[in-house]
Amino acid sequence: MKKIILIPDSFKGTMSSIEICNVMEKAIKNHFPKTEVVKIAVADGGEGSVDSFLLSMGGKKIVKNVKGPYFEEIKAFYGILDDNKTAIIEMASAAGLPLVGENRQAHKTTTFGVGELINDAVDKGIDKLIIGLGGSATNDGGCGAAVALGAKFYDENETEFIPVGETLKNIQRVDISKIKERLANIEVITMCDIDNTLCGEQGAAAVFGPQKGANPETVKLLDEGLYNLSQIVKKDLNVDILNVKGSGAAGGMGGGMIAFLDSTLQMGIESVLDTVKFDDQLEGVDMVFTGEGKIDSQSLRGKVVIGVARRTKKKEVPLIVVVGQIGDDVTEAYEEGVTGIFSINKAPIPFDEAKLQTKENLYIMMDNLIRILK
Amino acid sequence: MKKIILIPDSFKGTMSSIEICNVMEKAIKNHFPKTEVVKIAVADGGEGSVDSFLLSMGGKKIVKNVKGPYFEEIKAFYGILDDNKTAIIEMASAAGLPLVGENRQAHKTTTFGVGELINDAVDKGIDKLIIGLGGSATNDGGCGAAVALGAKFYDENETEFIPVGETLKNIQRVDISKIKERLANIEVITMCDIDNTLCGEQGAAAVFGPQKGANPETVKLLDEGLYNLSQIVKKDLNVDILNVKGSGAAGGMGGGMIAFLDSTLQMGIESVLDTVKFDDQLEGVDMVFTGEGKIDSQSLRGKVVIGVARRTKKKEVPLIVVVGQIGDDVTEAYEEGVTGIFSINKAPIPFDEAKLQTKENLYIMMDNLIRILK
Repeated sequence: MKKIILIPDSFKGTMSSIEICNVMEKAIKNHFPKTEVVKIAVADGGEGSVDSFLLSMGGKKIVKNVKGPYFEEIKAFYGILDDNKTAIIEMASAAGLPLVGENRQAHKTTTFGVGELINDAVDKGIDKLIIGLGGSATNDGGCGAAVALGAKFYDENETEFIPVGETLKNIQRVDISKIKERLANIEVITMCDIDNTLCGEQGAAAVFGPQKGANPETVKLLDEGLYNLSQIVKKDLNVDILNVKGSGAAGGMGGGMIAFLDSTLQMGIESVLDTVKFDDQLEGVDMVFTGEGKIDSQSLRGKVVIGVARRTKKKEVPLIVVVGQIGDDVTEAYEEGVTGIFSINKAPIPFDEAKLQTKENLYIMMDNLIRILK
Repeated sequence: MKKIILIPDSFKGTMSSIEICNVMEKAIKNHFPKTEVVKIAVADGGEGSVDSFLLSMGGKKIVKNVKGPYFEEIKAFYGILDDNKTAIIEMASAAGLPLVGENRQAHKTTTFGVGELINDAVDKGIDKLIIGLGGSATNDGGCGAAVALGAKFYDENETEFIPVGETLKNIQRVDISKIKERLANIEVITMCDIDNTLCGEQGAAAVFGPQKGANPETVKLLDEGLYNLSQIVKKDLNVDILNVKGSGAAGGMGGGMIAFLDSTLQMGIESVLDTVKFDDQLEGVDMVFTGEGKIDSQSLRGKVVIGVARRTKKKEVPLIVVVGQIGDDVTEAYEEGVTGIFSINKAPIPFDEAKLQTKENLYIMMDNLIRILK
């Protein structure tokens, strides 16, 4: 074996993508010390995404003083890759749920700090912006971030204000000319692994509001606010975000990124694969390992394993999938390009026990796979 | 792949060796329809051993009227392989625990019927006898079987009798000249997967007596009887069976086979490997699959997997082990010749649930192994 690529998703709740890469590498190096092992930590947009990109691609982490969810001063960070042209913003860093602790009030929180991080990256002359959604404490439709970038929101009295969840309904007019100017030559990609639309039963407020502290009344208020936002955006920006899949991500920030930053929404894995130039990396590769916590017919829809499989298939590179659990029928995976699927469970014991030995079990499975592939 | 050998141990309590062979074959044939698949069902001497040999080697099953555990008339069976020279006797067929139901009295039961089966095989002109121990209801040290074959046991009054567990202590003299004559040109192998000695705390009566209905008093009686047998055997036959490992198998029948039939005791897997001429079969084989319910440092001592590994290693044939569970450190297995070890568990669920899907899980694991080996 000359070259192996590792590109596993995290095993939710047990191992991060990076941890999995490291265990896999150890097992491989034990048998093939001279093999080149490329580790690509997979980010989904949520917490840890910046670290993942930096680890895979190299780059620096920049820490900034910005506004937190309640407009308080906090330190947040983003990443600039080694090319000095690509910035990775993880919205959770400035507007994430862990920042508010028990004080969860989705109707009062802002993404303003996320916009400040973007601003800082733009000042540094980047030409590509990857914004990771996920783990937000907010429901402001990304309006706070937009204001930080130069957008202006007006109420019925033509008074400028920074909308938060409870005041989204007051927006009467929006002007993003300054953002357009500022981001004119910057490609913006938003990483988003959910496909909820902006409003309604499957919308941002109804589905994610409660975990951000919203009671049924507040959910209704937030939902109406997002609906108003969509109508204003349609009127003033000529963009219809209401029924776009993913617009409901991160308290409507998915929709906001489309409307205010002219961004594309993309599955996290696609952003990762594009950014690391995965297709080029596949040249000369003998084998690729990927994985996820549980593979089933559900997870085959656009998630990491299939995203990777579609690309390895084109280059005819074998792809081995290592998982925490094999669910229902996964034959589709083989059609999509997966060579083989292996669960790391070495004994019939319940998850509560098994989760304590996932790293050991992963190592054992990898060790045995490498032994038979030798 | 031109040729694959399957030689799995049973997964105790979930799948027989034959069932495992069939599932494995199905997965292989699905990808390699033209590959020659050799299925070797593994016998350990206990129930099912005759069927296993017949399935692996071809041959016929012969049903005979013989004496059961309480000297009652029963129908029992044995096997003669296709060479017409090798007989397989499964002692459980004529003296097994299932034959006595709840009426378990280890001090009264006999292996006489086992001797009758052997007699019948000898009449047919065989030159090799494989006797499987395991699952016995008896504790007669194999004396019953010996009598059926011509041995004579005498008490202190020089009265001939057929010793059972409670009367072993009465043996004063034994004469096996008729057996020697009868079996003069017959090789006798006894399959025996336990290494208990004849008497004492780790002896036949103490360890296995209770499950055959013996209370502490009876255990003592049986143990003293076996000790007396060993002393008589030493005196009259010049054979010391007291501390031979395996002599305590099947109520002391292990020791009896050594003393009365001049038999070798052998691990079941070795008997199987020799009988199927495994070394010859390995010629031209691309890969061997074996397996067992649980692999751990304990199971590595002389059990199926290692028995097979030692032989595949000599011929440099890859050996893949599929198991229900990987226990503690098994690195020794790789040194012994195992290429890789894979557990069939596809999810972290307890055994009670997992055991219901072992066949499906085995198929999935085999299917994926074949896919990556393709």
